[in-house]
Amino acid sequence: MYNLAMKVSELGEFRLIDLLADAAARSKPAEASSWQQVLVGIGDDAAAWHSDASVQLATTDTLVQDVHFTLDTIAWEDLGWKALAVNLSDIAAMGAVPRYALLSLALPGDSEVEDIAALYRGMAKLANQFGVALVGGDIASAPLVVITVALWGSGLGGDDLMLTRSAAVPGDRIAVTGHLGSSAAGLKMLRQKLRFEPETTAFLKEAHLRPHPRVAEGQMLARHGVKAAIDISDGLIADLAHVCRASKVAARIRVDRVPVHPRLRASFKDDPLGLALSGGEDYELLFTARRGMIDRVKKAADCPISIIGEIVRGEPGTVTLTDEAGKAFDWQGRGWEHFVSTGD
Amino acid sequence: MYNLAMKVSELGEFRLIDLLADAAARSKPAEASSWQQVLVGIGDDAAAWHSDASVQLATTDTLVQDVHFTLDTIAWEDLGWKALAVNLSDIAAMGAVPRYALLSLALPGDSEVEDIAALYRGMAKLANQFGVALVGGDIASAPLVVITVALWGSGLGGDDLMLTRSAAVPGDRIAVTGHLGSSAAGLKMLRQKLRFEPETTAFLKEAHLRPHPRVAEGQMLARHGVKAAIDISDGLIADLAHVCRASKVAARIRVDRVPVHPRLRASFKDDPLGLALSGGEDYELLFTARRGMIDRVKKAADCPISIIGEIVRGEPGTVTLTDEAGKAFDWQGRGWEHFVSTGD
Repeated sequence: MYNLAMKVSELGEFRLIDLLADAAARSKPAEASSWQQVLVGIGDDAAAWHSDASVQLATTDTLVQDVHFTLDTIAWEDLGWKALAVNLSDIAAMGAVPRYALLSLALPGDSEVEDIAALYRGMAKLANQFGVALVGGDIASAPLVVITVALWGSGLGGDDLMLTRSAAVPGDRIAVTGHLGSSAAGLKMLRQKLRFEPETTAFLKEAHLRPHPRVAEGQMLARHGVKAAIDISDGLIADLAHVCRASKVAARIRVDRVPVHPRLRASFKDDPLGLALSGGEDYELLFTARRGMIDRVKKAADCPISIIGEIVRGEPGTVTLTDEAGKAFDWQGRGWEHFVSTGD
Repeated sequence: MYNLAMKVSELGEFRLIDLLADAAARSKPAEASSWQQVLVGIGDDAAAWHSDASVQLATTDTLVQDVHFTLDTIAWEDLGWKALAVNLSDIAAMGAVPRYALLSLALPGDSEVEDIAALYRGMAKLANQFGVALVGGDIASAPLVVITVALWGSGLGGDDLMLTRSAAVPGDRIAVTGHLGSSAAGLKMLRQKLRFEPETTAFLKEAHLRPHPRVAEGQMLARHGVKAAIDISDGLIADLAHVCRASKVAARIRVDRVPVHPRLRASFKDDPLGLALSGGEDYELLFTARRGMIDRVKKAADCPISIIGEIVRGEPGTVTLTDEAGKAFDWQGRGWEHFVSTGD
């Protein structure tokens, strides 16, 4: 129906929208409840759907070419996946159910149509995994690629079944899902063209290019009564500091308990811990709760859950690190912050 | 509290977010129901709110520097206003109630903090006019300014109280709110530094820089039983063609009935009609309905409503123009389409 071997400028904005609308219609799983409730999809002034959820959530995240990604280290399909994944991770960190997404795409006119189709395919694959309906968006020309996804979700139930950054209290233990640092290691491998054995290469690439947002885990945490969580996008220390500032508490981390995947430990011998503490883009969940609650969560979880420290009274936002002997751990790094690379 | 006379790169991402969150908190009108229903605002992984509406709507629109605007023809406060206005207009065109907005802002590190504060102020002013709560967003560095707003709305009632592009039927009259072409004339005046008397200059500037989305009018149309509408962003002919394609019908326009404001007619003597037919960015509503329904709408409306033509059977998407004598009107222009400037 469409000739993909052409430039976006040859196809034009409106036929590109038609192409993406067709792709969305073809890819949608018939059984997904979000799709069943769509009243108006791609191609009108706004999308519309039926909802009976009493708590609504929304998040948005932008990926900018040469800031968040470079086209020589990520394939278009992975880019589409990742643009949605970072938003799914935000909804996961609230313990909510992702439902509807809008894609706003700014791109140069000489972009290849098949690349944009691949981007959309990657996004649709991940959307289908989580029953998210891609219901609309916007396309504009720009000198570089800027991808913004807005994602709407619904709460599990009442207001009390929600995870926020501001609910950590002294005495809580700090826990994380999965392993940390693998995404930053993957980026380093891609940028520096480092070579490892095929399984390690595949593992690190997947960690960086195709993060798996912890959507089911976020909901499981909320159902078990956990109140405080954040997703690890800026880096463990930076994101924990966000929680501490929002909750007006401090935190202590035992660096030897920070979970580093054996493949990362084996391939980045000099500084796996630095990557785990400040690498960012892991899209794992960090949460705080009483020890007993975390023990119950561990039993219910399909992924590793590691207790890495505790919430304490102190100067709000302060994170201190100790080694296994309890000695202060001198850590120079920091998390990802736009515009600023040092100071604060 | 904040020193505004500094660069964004000196302030940093997180303190900029704090600054905008403070501005949002200060500016919000206490009586707005959308704000009262907010559970989690700026500063968490996602925004959350209570909702009892059964129909939800969402739209997103992006403004790219040097594509949609240039910083030498628009002030930052106007830019913030306009970035929200174009989204409000989409919700208006569905006959729905705008409720919650997220702002995704990509900008260079050497942007002035006071400019970003002004952008936010302009957006908040318009948001407050319509009871929209600014509940979150995203900030990232980029080599140029890219502003994406995602806007959520709620339907007036059942599914039948909604305006779509696909509901026009042969026999419907085509009507528009307000006047057309003034925004394009304003842009032309700003770009070419044209000089008019002060009232005309102010009128054309306002039309281009501070469009007033027809939110109340959209809801009024839906309540009166109108089914088909679109907002005029790409230009009258282009947007009418969108309606015709979506509704699988054709349209005939009487060009002498297209409403052009007297100030535009007086200031752009050579081609006010060309601007009105294809200028775009008017953010007026185009709708179709039976003549009797439009007469009732006219009585209820606080703004001019003009009948400019009718929906007919024919090749879907075709728009033909005639003059007052019924003769074919030769019109070379076309509406705004990203990537493509000629052909189809």
